[in-house]
Amino acid sequence: MTREELFQQIQKKRSFLCVGLDTDIRKIPTHLLDSEDPVFEFNKQIIDVTKDLCVAYKPNIAFYESLGMKGWGSLRKTLDYIPKEIFTIADAKRGDIGNTSSMYARAFFEEMDFDSVTVAPYMGSDSIKPFLDFEGKWAIVLALTSNAGGLDFQMTQDKNGRALYEKVLSTVQSWGENIMFVVGATRAEMLREVRSLAPENFLLVPGVGAQGGSLEEVAENGLNECCGLLVNSSRGIIYASSDERFADEARRKAMELQKQMELQLVKKGLI
Amino acid sequence: MTREELFQQIQKKRSFLCVGLDTDIRKIPTHLLDSEDPVFEFNKQIIDVTKDLCVAYKPNIAFYESLGMKGWGSLRKTLDYIPKEIFTIADAKRGDIGNTSSMYARAFFEEMDFDSVTVAPYMGSDSIKPFLDFEGKWAIVLALTSNAGGLDFQMTQDKNGRALYEKVLSTVQSWGENIMFVVGATRAEMLREVRSLAPENFLLVPGVGAQGGSLEEVAENGLNECCGLLVNSSRGIIYASSDERFADEARRKAMELQKQMELQLVKKGLI
Repeated sequence: MTREELFQQIQKKRSFLCVGLDTDIRKIPTHLLDSEDPVFEFNKQIIDVTKDLCVAYKPNIAFYESLGMKGWGSLRKTLDYIPKEIFTIADAKRGDIGNTSSMYARAFFEEMDFDSVTVAPYMGSDSIKPFLDFEGKWAIVLALTSNAGGLDFQMTQDKNGRALYEKVLSTVQSWGENIMFVVGATRAEMLREVRSLAPENFLLVPGVGAQGGSLEEVAENGLNECCGLLVNSSRGIIYASSDERFADEARRKAMELQKQMELQLVKKGLI
Repeated sequence: MTREELFQQIQKKRSFLCVGLDTDIRKIPTHLLDSEDPVFEFNKQIIDVTKDLCVAYKPNIAFYESLGMKGWGSLRKTLDYIPKEIFTIADAKRGDIGNTSSMYARAFFEEMDFDSVTVAPYMGSDSIKPFLDFEGKWAIVLALTSNAGGLDFQMTQDKNGRALYEKVLSTVQSWGENIMFVVGATRAEMLREVRSLAPENFLLVPGVGAQGGSLEEVAENGLNECCGLLVNSSRGIIYASSDERFADEARRKAMELQKQMELQLVKKGLI
């Protein structure tokens, strides 16, 4: 998918919502456990009620991998079920030496046909560049993450006072075109700084919703002239209710976020 | 597996060799392509001829993942075929926020029963600690990698002149017991420095063999009182020959390395 196609979808749906499919077999409503593939059945119903409200789906690969072959089967069915115009993110945090990153890229872009993969930057250029060799596919590189441990290394300053995440932002964007960055919403005050270092790139912002970031702050500091934001909510939407009404509740939560996003897009003059 | 059990195996086999199973369907001998599961058939024959010479096997997960469900099937059969006393490493470079790292740990330690997983440190403590909650299982954390891109961020110095990889070594070892580190052999001169920062930890050293690190230098700078080294060779062993003699050639290469390792273990007084 091109940047323009993504922006068109954002304008059409008046939303920059990404729904995180962190589907945990231990958390889905019990009445689904009798179906042949409960994880896929759950995802299918979530997709049915959110596909007009979101522009991206982000399956968290760990949740599928932990179920072995059956989990990979559920993931594939989920991916096939997502409408083609919606951007898909394999949240996999991969990254290895060149020939191995090429294999991961083949796994997610060819074997599975995701539009993008999240990638960890620790191993540097040859761990990221292989993900940029596929037309219309994207690498989404970790810059500033919203978890507590994000402070351990990402904030380490060099002699010039530049934090590691700032070096990652500045360095990685020079490696290719189709690069986005992961930037945690719990540090919304830093988004302005991030945006100044990466004015063009789309930012994938996790942590709005269950983890409590403020959407308004994120939009104010992060929106650029082609939106440039994908804001994710996982648990806040998919586990809004744990009973038979889970799909209705998920839709209600997704719509709340979409309405807030619409306001911000209007305010910025993007729709 | 405990540290003591690993050291006992090293003493018994007079070797600290890890064989990397980077099995690429496009590189295995053509006569194997007719078998039902060529990747497993290749691994089986490699294991048959190296299991008395090595103490660890390290499947590179990307190579299996790129083949989809069939690849995961080959990986499981390979893991089941490896003798129980041999240490197994899922070279997967995983790492995510806490609840997601827990899922990856379950995938590799419970769903698949690996002894260890390689983990990327960028996301900090809560991305690594979930791998330490499993008795007898190990997290092998990236510190200094041997690829060209390893220089991009790992060598970044803070105000006190401490490189990022040094901070990773010092910080991460305080998070738990069963931690090893990945340290590239192409920077053997740095191994002395690494050993001073992490005197007790086992180091997984890739890059001996095809990538050309010197085993003697690695041993001199890296051995500690319970060996403390696992030196990996992947392509140098498994692709030593591409025809029907591949298993014999793999054994010859593995034995060459084992003999060199035996010398170093004797020299250090460890056997």
